[in-house]
Amino acid sequence: MGVVVKLSGSRDPKASLAPLIALVEEDMARVNRIILDRARSNVDLIPELARHLIDSGGKRLRPMLTLAAAKMCGYGGEGHVQLAASVEFMHTATLLHDDVVDESNLRRGKIAARLLWGNEASVLVGDYLLGQAFKMMVDVGSLDALRILSNAAAIIAEGEVMQLMTANNTETTEDDYLAVIEAKTAALFSAAAEVGAIVADRPKSEAAALRSYGRNLGIAFQLVDDALDYSGQQELLGKTVGDDFREGKVTLPVVLCYRRGNGEERAFWERTLKGGNIGDDDLDKAINLLVRHNALADTMDRARHYGAISRDALAIFPDCEIKSALLEAIEFSVDRPF
Amino acid sequence: MGVVVKLSGSRDPKASLAPLIALVEEDMARVNRIILDRARSNVDLIPELARHLIDSGGKRLRPMLTLAAAKMCGYGGEGHVQLAASVEFMHTATLLHDDVVDESNLRRGKIAARLLWGNEASVLVGDYLLGQAFKMMVDVGSLDALRILSNAAAIIAEGEVMQLMTANNTETTEDDYLAVIEAKTAALFSAAAEVGAIVADRPKSEAAALRSYGRNLGIAFQLVDDALDYSGQQELLGKTVGDDFREGKVTLPVVLCYRRGNGEERAFWERTLKGGNIGDDDLDKAINLLVRHNALADTMDRARHYGAISRDALAIFPDCEIKSALLEAIEFSVDRPF
Repeated sequence: MGVVVKLSGSRDPKASLAPLIALVEEDMARVNRIILDRARSNVDLIPELARHLIDSGGKRLRPMLTLAAAKMCGYGGEGHVQLAASVEFMHTATLLHDDVVDESNLRRGKIAARLLWGNEASVLVGDYLLGQAFKMMVDVGSLDALRILSNAAAIIAEGEVMQLMTANNTETTEDDYLAVIEAKTAALFSAAAEVGAIVADRPKSEAAALRSYGRNLGIAFQLVDDALDYSGQQELLGKTVGDDFREGKVTLPVVLCYRRGNGEERAFWERTLKGGNIGDDDLDKAINLLVRHNALADTMDRARHYGAISRDALAIFPDCEIKSALLEAIEFSVDRPF
Repeated sequence: MGVVVKLSGSRDPKASLAPLIALVEEDMARVNRIILDRARSNVDLIPELARHLIDSGGKRLRPMLTLAAAKMCGYGGEGHVQLAASVEFMHTATLLHDDVVDESNLRRGKIAARLLWGNEASVLVGDYLLGQAFKMMVDVGSLDALRILSNAAAIIAEGEVMQLMTANNTETTEDDYLAVIEAKTAALFSAAAEVGAIVADRPKSEAAALRSYGRNLGIAFQLVDDALDYSGQQELLGKTVGDDFREGKVTLPVVLCYRRGNGEERAFWERTLKGGNIGDDDLDKAINLLVRHNALADTMDRARHYGAISRDALAIFPDCEIKSALLEAIEFSVDRPF
């Protein structure tokens, strides 16, 4: 893995999540308390496994979107904290089920739960967290928020199935691929942001703006994830470089590279991703091909395109500190090293 | 498997589900249409897999409880049909995830979905159906019904985890075991019946009565299931006799038999259920032990105890055709051959 790929674009390299994190810090502490509280159960395995995942943290980008969106919409109540916790539980449940499906070994830099407690536990604790997520949403009492989040839950699962069916298929088109990530990733980003406006009882236009912000941010985020899987630094990523490759996932970098390649190169992708026949040097070879065909850089460019849409979606909101922080979160998402 | 076990009690052997089925027939046809409609998706695998499960039918006892309870409560609206479909989807999702966890090979007499489409698909399509279930509940618009059903979803998952942790543990007590089935089975029966009163906007006492009816019926139903796993006729059961034994599940018949047995017999259960070391003759041997210690007959007796509680719970409702049908469903549940 001697290939070093420089992907940062021309944007401010200091762009970061820091302003967003600072603005929602207090609410986020409450989200974390709710999360720990709701992951409790008399069945020891549940809090154990949930804590394993929760302690390892992750960026918590999705619940931050809910908190910040509600705040930007002038919400003064308590519901956004519960909705944010629900969003994070939905995400955590998806991760648990994903790892079972992908047979992943690392998650957020820690050994995947399925390896410690078994696939069965991952499936069932995921179900438990999903149940808790819905309970919390019901407690908030907004049928509109419930509609948006339950719809997202169905779409996410649909996207995961879609991904399963396109897995190992090197003929996947960019459109096919986008349909998958719109469902499996962007749907939750979108719902997370939108419910911020819903709980604040704001007009449809604001809910739609936040929905669009979240959706496009989610697409950008996932595309960068896909590029980082081949180009990131393992210590920062919290997962192994090349996981997607080893799992035969046909992500956008591969979609682009396969189409741009010659017969011999296509045969390489077919042998490795479709055939699952992967030798020691094949990851390096894959990265070399991706670089040669600009597939990683162009994936980042596509991400910037969605980032730009996400940015424009927020234009209807008056300038304020939170809006700036949400805009900076886009820059972070398209230029992040992890 | 030459052992024939006669378990029927002293009750009317003609007791059956027929009256209940007849009373909700029309509504059930609408439930079935909703189920097929909601299992639709552009992602082919979803309707395929869902239809595999749905076509194989099963008894549809849970959604029938919702329909009948609402009808008995004088409900004249449309919501009960959607809630019944949600209940069936929740159940179907649980079955899909269960089969992955149990590594089952048959479900409702058909090859388990996981063997046809893989564990991954079973996990994800289960998630999709759960998402659809919540969407339907939200459409009905009753926050109380949502609270009851989302609570049930979390409890069911908790019960499944509990079962996973007590699996293969021959020291499980009857109380431990009851806690598991209250969560994994009775919670959905209970919620299914209760939401019938909720959607009809009936007083708390009626909701509580239906909750109790469902809960105790669910416990009885599961206990009979556990006995039938050793004593049923395979053609009627729609699953293999001895599945629980082969999976090392410590169900009530085993709990009773282990405690009543001598050292040698306990060693047998430890070798087979705890140790997973099962020879060709061991299922017959297990059934012989269960018969010798009256463990199957006493499990059925315990089921009748819960059936009696379930019966009394309905006493506050005036006599009517639906009440009779619900009471007959108890008799069916404790005396059924499948």
